[in-house]
Amino acid sequence: MSQEIREQPAVWERLLTQGRAGIDEVAARIEAGSPRFVLFAARGTSDNAALYAKYLVEILLQLPAGSVSPSTMTSYGSRPKLQDVLLISVSQSGGSPDLVKSVEVAKECGALTLAVTNSAQSPLARAAELHVDILAGPERAVAATKSYTAQLLALYLLIDRLAGGDASAAADLPSLGREVLTQENDVARHAARYRFAQRLVVTGRGYSSATAQEAALKLMETSYVSAQAFSGADFMHGPVAVIDQSVPVIAINAPGIGGDAMSDVLSRLNDENADVLCIGRESAANPAWPVLALPGRTPEQVSPILEILLLQELALHLAVERGADPDAPRGLRKVTETL
Amino acid sequence: MSQEIREQPAVWERLLTQGRAGIDEVAARIEAGSPRFVLFAARGTSDNAALYAKYLVEILLQLPAGSVSPSTMTSYGSRPKLQDVLLISVSQSGGSPDLVKSVEVAKECGALTLAVTNSAQSPLARAAELHVDILAGPERAVAATKSYTAQLLALYLLIDRLAGGDASAAADLPSLGREVLTQENDVARHAARYRFAQRLVVTGRGYSSATAQEAALKLMETSYVSAQAFSGADFMHGPVAVIDQSVPVIAINAPGIGGDAMSDVLSRLNDENADVLCIGRESAANPAWPVLALPGRTPEQVSPILEILLLQELALHLAVERGADPDAPRGLRKVTETL
Repeated sequence: MSQEIREQPAVWERLLTQGRAGIDEVAARIEAGSPRFVLFAARGTSDNAALYAKYLVEILLQLPAGSVSPSTMTSYGSRPKLQDVLLISVSQSGGSPDLVKSVEVAKECGALTLAVTNSAQSPLARAAELHVDILAGPERAVAATKSYTAQLLALYLLIDRLAGGDASAAADLPSLGREVLTQENDVARHAARYRFAQRLVVTGRGYSSATAQEAALKLMETSYVSAQAFSGADFMHGPVAVIDQSVPVIAINAPGIGGDAMSDVLSRLNDENADVLCIGRESAANPAWPVLALPGRTPEQVSPILEILLLQELALHLAVERGADPDAPRGLRKVTETL
Repeated sequence: MSQEIREQPAVWERLLTQGRAGIDEVAARIEAGSPRFVLFAARGTSDNAALYAKYLVEILLQLPAGSVSPSTMTSYGSRPKLQDVLLISVSQSGGSPDLVKSVEVAKECGALTLAVTNSAQSPLARAAELHVDILAGPERAVAATKSYTAQLLALYLLIDRLAGGDASAAADLPSLGREVLTQENDVARHAARYRFAQRLVVTGRGYSSATAQEAALKLMETSYVSAQAFSGADFMHGPVAVIDQSVPVIAINAPGIGGDAMSDVLSRLNDENADVLCIGRESAANPAWPVLALPGRTPEQVSPILEILLLQELALHLAVERGADPDAPRGLRKVTETL
């Protein structure tokens, strides 16, 4: 897991050079289809990548987007009317039967289908009309790391292209990523503090909602902590009641609109005397809270690709602190087959 | 809270009689607009009602559906292309500024807008072109109970009508609800067992995914337990690693397709020696697990309206066991204003 975390800037470089032509070609095919609605189908880590992409679609493409509940097509036999719909399935392995079935049904029902996977030979890649290969290379740790950020970057490159962009926001990611990874000793020190935490909350807004979800999943998978993720706004609508001194909070407070929109949440957490670690930058609500900083010049729409690096390292070091094996978490396999 | 839980069958009777004409009128207006996509906007408990309605739209109406991230319109200034879109906002109070703003923007962007609220005079009801009043009456406990099931029933009546149904599945709900509520002593006994649980998982599939989410929220709000909700399939994609003897699981295993699709999840939980309580019916994976039963003759599409009664009672009794005040949870107000 440690090696795959460190490999990420090189994976992004590959995608930014060798991956571009394929992505641009897929973008041209999608443009020809003029979709009016975008649906995502994914599970686990890939579903968190889909959540990031949903924000890109809503903000950059200005199209309505949603996430399908695969069981409606696989178990309930729904055959929805999907003309003008682009269905994007996201999966590292491309092997989960319920996603393959969802893509097959969506195609029959009139959707244009795209698979974003790390395996061009996978059943999912073959089932969809279009395919984007995230070129992350073989991933051996059960907890996905490099395939996650490769999914984010591939989806960014695709959607930015569809929105008429030139992907300039992504150009510096490899060097920014290397800079972020130099903070590993700091991250390890924070991980040690969570050694005995049973419960933990991660919160963020906007693009960073995906980071909160993925950080919580990594912490659950590798360290077995009951990590809960909430968008800042949803957190205030009830779950904030669980916060006390035994429940630390990790707040994604990166530079940008999403981070700015966290200010009410952070003030509230300060009122509750919560134990808060900020990812991104210092919070005006309490400048004494510790910070794992991100480079200030990161464009917000690609910030989640950097944010998660710190939280992948946190999950790794917390697992090691707890004597767990982050490469082979209890009860998990690399490919999860759900029906 | 106890009184409002017991009031629910009477609220449903009111909606089934006095509420029907208004709902049918709204359905006719929606039919005239011929929407091709349905979007939901909601927060907290109301977002769990929206999740139930999303399954109804996907399965009964066979239309694609999604959930908007309000911040894309309120903070990021997105102005999405929403022709042919029906935007349904769900809110007990109808008072949250971000939802009002989302409805206003959606209307400007071409969507047909509907508000489902417990207050016909609320800003949300006034902002939307169409309004369904859930007729739940004043709700005083901070933890929403009767307004939740009234939202579910109102959304069922509306979507079933749009799908050409006659709402016959809902006719017996008041009597079935009274039958379910007679199990309160049993529920209280189970609540006592969770007295010292810090963490808990609730899982369900299909329509019952909404029950899992809402049960977890009630347990967080009233008892401050870190309750996590997962759809059965998502649970297997990582979070199942957190399960050990200190993390009890509540599994929604109601009669129907969603319950049947839980069989793999339940077998896996049995392999892990998990502490499981089944809501609905016995599990073949382990017939020794305790069960809080639901009447076998409940049609699956309205089953979540009954399932949650048992879990509202569980949250209430657990709060009392813990010396908390379920009517006024720490750190929460009845109307949460997020921007």
